[in-house]
Amino acid sequence: MTITPLLARRTRNMGASAIREILKVASRPGMISLAGGIPAPESFPMHIMRDVIDSVIEKYGPNAFQYDLTEGFLPLREALAAYLADKGVAAAPEQVLIASGSQGALDGLGKILISPGDHVALEAPTYLGALQAFTPYEPQYVQIETDHRGMLPDALENALERHPVKFVYLVPNFQNPTGRTLPLKRRRAIAEIIQRFDTLLVEDDPYGDLRYRGTPLPPIKSMAPDHVVYISTLSKVFAPGLRMGFSLAPDRVRRWLVLAKQGVDLHTSTFNQALAAEYLAGGHLKRHLPHIVDLYRPRQQAMLDAMARFFPDAFTWSVPDGGMFVWAEGPEGMDMEAVNRKALERNTAFVPGTFFFARPGDGRETLRLNYTMADEATLSRAIELLGEVLSDALSQKQIYKRMG
Amino acid sequence: MTITPLLARRTRNMGASAIREILKVASRPGMISLAGGIPAPESFPMHIMRDVIDSVIEKYGPNAFQYDLTEGFLPLREALAAYLADKGVAAAPEQVLIASGSQGALDGLGKILISPGDHVALEAPTYLGALQAFTPYEPQYVQIETDHRGMLPDALENALERHPVKFVYLVPNFQNPTGRTLPLKRRRAIAEIIQRFDTLLVEDDPYGDLRYRGTPLPPIKSMAPDHVVYISTLSKVFAPGLRMGFSLAPDRVRRWLVLAKQGVDLHTSTFNQALAAEYLAGGHLKRHLPHIVDLYRPRQQAMLDAMARFFPDAFTWSVPDGGMFVWAEGPEGMDMEAVNRKALERNTAFVPGTFFFARPGDGRETLRLNYTMADEATLSRAIELLGEVLSDALSQKQIYKRMG
Repeated sequence: MTITPLLARRTRNMGASAIREILKVASRPGMISLAGGIPAPESFPMHIMRDVIDSVIEKYGPNAFQYDLTEGFLPLREALAAYLADKGVAAAPEQVLIASGSQGALDGLGKILISPGDHVALEAPTYLGALQAFTPYEPQYVQIETDHRGMLPDALENALERHPVKFVYLVPNFQNPTGRTLPLKRRRAIAEIIQRFDTLLVEDDPYGDLRYRGTPLPPIKSMAPDHVVYISTLSKVFAPGLRMGFSLAPDRVRRWLVLAKQGVDLHTSTFNQALAAEYLAGGHLKRHLPHIVDLYRPRQQAMLDAMARFFPDAFTWSVPDGGMFVWAEGPEGMDMEAVNRKALERNTAFVPGTFFFARPGDGRETLRLNYTMADEATLSRAIELLGEVLSDALSQKQIYKRMG
Repeated sequence: MTITPLLARRTRNMGASAIREILKVASRPGMISLAGGIPAPESFPMHIMRDVIDSVIEKYGPNAFQYDLTEGFLPLREALAAYLADKGVAAAPEQVLIASGSQGALDGLGKILISPGDHVALEAPTYLGALQAFTPYEPQYVQIETDHRGMLPDALENALERHPVKFVYLVPNFQNPTGRTLPLKRRRAIAEIIQRFDTLLVEDDPYGDLRYRGTPLPPIKSMAPDHVVYISTLSKVFAPGLRMGFSLAPDRVRRWLVLAKQGVDLHTSTFNQALAAEYLAGGHLKRHLPHIVDLYRPRQQAMLDAMARFFPDAFTWSVPDGGMFVWAEGPEGMDMEAVNRKALERNTAFVPGTFFFARPGDGRETLRLNYTMADEATLSRAIELLGEVLSDALSQKQIYKRMG
């Protein structure tokens, strides 16, 4: 049996991902990886895990291990409604829909909204997992221009005038891959635009709680509640292995998300939902979050300090107020995939930025650096080494240009 | 914003499910429900749950809460390879793919295989969750005739001659909804047919371990390994709330399932996979399974005894060797949806069988009865009451016939 004639048309879009191969290589022993996008294991609240588990078993007994509603475990939805209220987002518990990671919410939105050929607008660059969720449903992507503060409202307006866009996708806080945060004024402008065009916005906010300095900004959801699907996850503030995501969608969208989820996984793990409910409602998140921030802030600082010292002058980079990533851009014409191969030879890994663009070939001179998975000394050493690789590549490029 | 123009074409197939409404009514306080399809909470191994959890935290620490491979947590894949070997199915751990419930495996198969209009062949009646997984991908269903021993090989062969079928779906053991088990001879015949037609078979086996009497039969997977995707779950033998399913697919199918899963949920809960690994590898399943069987066997017997006593003579029903369901058929022309409404008025619920047929309107005279969620006395009382409702309906139908 050959597989190709068996596959659905959509499946041919699911190419083996080059980034997956990079991450595989990056996880080899001895490698210093700035490539991943995963939280430090020492950020997990292991010291209270048994207490949380004991509370759950005591409170819910076998119900914590039984089938439950597709919409989610009610105590978690209640806890999340309170969590959202703290962010200025009004939600009844019944409106919060649990997902198997925020990936589950993204897949659900792609499934219910995208017919082949439909337009989806997103930042350039954007979150790779969103592309992986949407692409199987065969959309046409409309890349919206960004600058160092995120999506440009004018560019969005322009795109909505030119294309019948099913929905707009963006990450407002400490974006993956760029670390950028959308300023308040732009949030207001985007809220106004999507309401005027009567378009749906998917606001994906996994990193908002990881703020190292400055004041949290209100979600766009709070400005245009009827036009925004707000998505988030507990992966960065509790434990990613529990796959605990959620969405707050306008009612008429949510009911379809529920039907889709029923076919995809019936519901998200009851036990993990109960653990998350206990973590939130027991006040553990509020107590533990400062420790996570205190863990990451100096790591980011170490990376930024080392970049200032060791990166070639031709490079610029973001200085994010939180999150997990720094984004760097080299001079036009540099090929960061080639640079990454050189870096891997020297046991240092990063992700070439081109993978985060919907349009193939864009952003070849960019790179994403993660600082959550290594200590300060290791990060400094890795950046020093990467600086050397970049300088080498740069000088070779100059040589090449002279010859050309 | 109106939602309809926003929806993808596939979404219009995801109609609000009538069965969902029935299950909602059936879960009201005071109702005796034979409608559900869920394991008894007293079947969960609560007495060893803390031990299993402690072992996992001790063995894996924060790794049990970290992101993991899309394919699954290796210790669980190893334990499942051993579990499958006991069933006569050869599998390397790397070939076992973890899913978020068997629902996740069904969705993945639908996603990678079904283009709109493609043919999918399945038993009539079949598992509702499979229809819910496949239908959003817009297949055309080909119903294969069954008798009291399951799918008829001749009918399958005939269907494969007439239609270009992407895959065949069946539940070989104690099928949901009928409780029927496919005999060895038919398994061999079906294995031969799918190999001859070079067609893929999806063998979904959630109930195989719940055998009350007789000898286990080998999975069709063991007879045609290169043409069968074997799917199962730990929902019925550990705890359904953990959403722990898995598949063993031919390599060329599995790699696409992995890519699809990456976009859907990245991976299944690491912690729950670690719990499942410990439950299997620690020998807990083997020790606990007999207790589950001992719990259900007398419940099934009580239901069958009461049916023999209280059901009208015009009815026939299955006498399954295991599983969770009894399937009954009334005389042609009866409408079990109407009967169910009458039964609900008397605080007894079941699922009309028509919902389990891919072709609307088929099986209107059939019903599915579940016996795992009530004790023997309650089951006898419910069946007595249901017998009265059925007798009433039958006599009204006879009156109607005489008038007509």
